[in-house]
Amino acid sequence: MRIIVDAFGGDNAPLEILRGCEMAVDQLGIDILLTGDEEKIRACAEENGISLSRCEIVSADSVVEMTDHAEAVIKAKKNSSLAEAMRQLAAGNGDAVVSAGNTGAVLMGGTFIVKRIRGIKRAALATLLPTNDGGRVMLLDSGANADCRPEILAQFAMMGNEYMRGFFGIDRPRIGLLNVGTEDTKGGVLQKETFALLKEMDINFIGNVEARDVLVGVCDVLVTDGFCGNVLLKGIEGTVGTVMDNLKEIMYASLKTKLAALVLKPGLRRFKHKLDYTEVGGAPLIGVSAPVIKAHGNSKAKAFKNAIKQAVEFANSGAVEAIAAAAKSGKDTDNADA
Amino acid sequence: MRIIVDAFGGDNAPLEILRGCEMAVDQLGIDILLTGDEEKIRACAEENGISLSRCEIVSADSVVEMTDHAEAVIKAKKNSSLAEAMRQLAAGNGDAVVSAGNTGAVLMGGTFIVKRIRGIKRAALATLLPTNDGGRVMLLDSGANADCRPEILAQFAMMGNEYMRGFFGIDRPRIGLLNVGTEDTKGGVLQKETFALLKEMDINFIGNVEARDVLVGVCDVLVTDGFCGNVLLKGIEGTVGTVMDNLKEIMYASLKTKLAALVLKPGLRRFKHKLDYTEVGGAPLIGVSAPVIKAHGNSKAKAFKNAIKQAVEFANSGAVEAIAAAAKSGKDTDNADA
Repeated sequence: MRIIVDAFGGDNAPLEILRGCEMAVDQLGIDILLTGDEEKIRACAEENGISLSRCEIVSADSVVEMTDHAEAVIKAKKNSSLAEAMRQLAAGNGDAVVSAGNTGAVLMGGTFIVKRIRGIKRAALATLLPTNDGGRVMLLDSGANADCRPEILAQFAMMGNEYMRGFFGIDRPRIGLLNVGTEDTKGGVLQKETFALLKEMDINFIGNVEARDVLVGVCDVLVTDGFCGNVLLKGIEGTVGTVMDNLKEIMYASLKTKLAALVLKPGLRRFKHKLDYTEVGGAPLIGVSAPVIKAHGNSKAKAFKNAIKQAVEFANSGAVEAIAAAAKSGKDTDNADA
Repeated sequence: MRIIVDAFGGDNAPLEILRGCEMAVDQLGIDILLTGDEEKIRACAEENGISLSRCEIVSADSVVEMTDHAEAVIKAKKNSSLAEAMRQLAAGNGDAVVSAGNTGAVLMGGTFIVKRIRGIKRAALATLLPTNDGGRVMLLDSGANADCRPEILAQFAMMGNEYMRGFFGIDRPRIGLLNVGTEDTKGGVLQKETFALLKEMDINFIGNVEARDVLVGVCDVLVTDGFCGNVLLKGIEGTVGTVMDNLKEIMYASLKTKLAALVLKPGLRRFKHKLDYTEVGGAPLIGVSAPVIKAHGNSKAKAFKNAIKQAVEFANSGAVEAIAAAAKSGKDTDNADA
């Protein structure tokens, strides 16, 4: 197994990326193909005592910055570490790509360099949210596609179904549709038409799911357009942040509360860890013809190593092949999309 | 001031509704016009020792149930307590309506019996969310209109602006557009076109607002279609619920943690109170020609009394008149909507 790593993606590149790669080589026994300025990579590794054993480097001159437009990866910054990583994957020189870089550019590179699976209309960014019961729910799409037609959402359902089967070994993943009520007739035009399509598909469609039940763990895949998916994701993130800030304030109010907080700290830490979706590693890009993982932009070494681990498992899961087979056999409702 | 109250709306009707009315009469010095089965109202009041002083009753035979279709209020259940309340308001026999009943039916009754303000295309349900800085943000629309065009959202912005000016006395309310990023070009077609309209309006438009910043208190009005608004609202609600459930578990884990929790309890209670949007009272229906407040379906007496208080303030705010004037003068972009 060889994982291709964009050495210059994210806020902490290349140092934390290289540290993460070293950990991955040690712990997972894999090979790494690094893309990016070779001189800088070697200098950074040497300076910080990072071993590059089992790491090959393919040099690339430029870097897609967080502030760059997504298109840069296929236009002005074709020679970037991200574009090179995608080209190496497309050429079969590795099993998966991991990048902590510009999300839009990762999506764009995945779609136009690695390319979509035949028959797939839109690649989607999946976020795996930890649920309160210790499980996971895949939010699909969580931000790549703001405007979606019902046929697109039906494909997301198919892709999520295959991913959860392959990656987590769930036989019949529970597929839910994000909606404003649980009744069959809820929502706007998009939700009503999508509901009708999902009902006809050979999936375990459990119906509409309200945003308030998502963290409870009522489904394995939550189908949504990328706009609402992103609003929900950031709404959850912001709420957890606000609650935690308040908790801190309450606990630091006085010496008495500080002592009380000490007693609760282990439990609180476990809980914070449980709901922290950045612990999972990264967001898989679903629908492209080889595994791509978007690691969090602020990933440190350990988080990046987790993203590499996730890429290894993605490659081993057979999810890409399963999605390709399902798209080919028309298991989704792609044909309905004139 | 006379507030019209649907005595049979909500899960705890009529008992908690009547108790709430009694409190409102005592504390606010207002008159109440109750709609609903007079015999049942009198029996319930007598049985529970509730005074009906300053309460007039207009009898109505049926009740719009939570499970009824919204249209029931203008069709099969025209003779319901809710429909009667709306008719009394339309006839000018009171200053505002408060109902804890079926949300869709309240919206339908407001739109078709009380009727929209001239020039207003859609009535919207506004939810006032408490923010972390002790302020409030109005989520508009929070669930009434799933599918919206840019012109509709621009009207929501105008209405939210006038409401916040009238109700809270904010001179130039900060109006934000719910989006997936803060940059001007973010979002789907709806958001991009709405952004262009809001920029041209004579309001304090602060640009796009991400869901993660809503509770921080970055704007006074958050403009959104009802689908995303409802997803965000329920996402926040569900997240707070999940976090609180976990906190309880952590605090009840052992005798030691229980003792520690006792110390933190006052702070936690204040915090829970601070973020509990049901404390505000209810959701104003904006865009209809007289004030309507939708109280929470599970309102107990105190919450219902708060909803009545909110209705009094809504009626006193002049917001309906201000919205009517703004709609007439074309302050919104209604004219752009061919």
